[in-house]
Amino acid sequence: MDQEFASSLLENAVSEFAKLPGIGRKTALRLALYVLKQDKESAHRFGEAIIKLRDEIQYCRVCHNISETEVCPICSNPTRDHGTICVVENVKDVMSIENTHQHHGLYHVLGGLISPMDGVGPQDIEIDSLVDRVKAGGVREVILALSATMEGDTTNFYIFRKLAPYPDVKITMLARGVSVGNEIEYTDELTLGRSIQNRTLFSDTFHKEG
Amino acid sequence: MDQEFASSLLENAVSEFAKLPGIGRKTALRLALYVLKQDKESAHRFGEAIIKLRDEIQYCRVCHNISETEVCPICSNPTRDHGTICVVENVKDVMSIENTHQHHGLYHVLGGLISPMDGVGPQDIEIDSLVDRVKAGGVREVILALSATMEGDTTNFYIFRKLAPYPDVKITMLARGVSVGNEIEYTDELTLGRSIQNRTLFSDTFHKEG
Repeated sequence: MDQEFASSLLENAVSEFAKLPGIGRKTALRLALYVLKQDKESAHRFGEAIIKLRDEIQYCRVCHNISETEVCPICSNPTRDHGTICVVENVKDVMSIENTHQHHGLYHVLGGLISPMDGVGPQDIEIDSLVDRVKAGGVREVILALSATMEGDTTNFYIFRKLAPYPDVKITMLARGVSVGNEIEYTDELTLGRSIQNRTLFSDTFHKEG
Repeated sequence: MDQEFASSLLENAVSEFAKLPGIGRKTALRLALYVLKQDKESAHRFGEAIIKLRDEIQYCRVCHNISETEVCPICSNPTRDHGTICVVENVKDVMSIENTHQHHGLYHVLGGLISPMDGVGPQDIEIDSLVDRVKAGGVREVILALSATMEGDTTNFYIFRKLAPYPDVKITMLARGVSVGNEIEYTDELTLGRSIQNRTLFSDTFHKEG
């Protein structure tokens, strides 16, 4: 796609769209031409939504989730279990876990994972503030809900070590196992091995799902 | 995806992204979170590119293609064949045809196709201005390069009728046939039938491609 655009305005808009993840030049052109077809108000609403999102967004002082207020609705909800903190990589993970309705405690959004390859160290993500929350007391359990990747595991181990001085705090992590709906035949051996090691009582599982 | 967003700014940006063609709520969320991760300057550049694109874009007075000037570079290029006008649906089609390097004449961008189902009539697209160009004289050939759809065919016939008073102007259309690289087995019968009717001399085709 080495197209000459008839206008630098179009060229510029296409380049901007093409910076988005998963959007190539071809799709970017389609999106820019879509914007051109809309009325001016629509284009303004769209452009300003992007600018305002970045300019005016706030993060919860406690858990670093996106928030309209200094402390987010989850952290300030007295009916949630303030003794359990679920540690996640990003804002999207909070939404995913909230959608399961299985976690009734609070969150802690790291804002990334330790990744030496990408130059992300422990000081670049919100680990110190997690340790501070545990140090402040009242926390019974920290649930590590990070991706089952090398970066996730590295970050898990680092947090585990950092929280070693607080032996009363139980540190748990998400179960690894066969995905619901997946066939054994297509499950990788590592996952299958973990799912055998960590097998659960049939009666427990049945009870939980019922 | 019935997610509660922690911020109306995020909700708003996701809704705006989700209005784009081919972008669902899930992708829209991914794009909005990407914007959040960028610095403020990037978000401003992106948002303003969209607003400026829609606000400041100009169209060529002659062919209605996107242009930086009152008359576009193609229409004002004396080395192009001003006696041949290629009629296309939209700006993207001009780019596609320019990329083939097979058309050396001018264009005429209709800005749509006649589609009674969508309430688009002949007066909603740039047909009258095409007739005016032909009426003004100097045009030897009008190439109808519209999609091989019902709307394309309807528009072709309408233009054909409108240009009937100018019998000296040759009206041609894109050849219908088997796509280059496609197997006969998977070509639909209608296309295959047209490609037999309109078969070309092997020596001509060989010569053209050589």
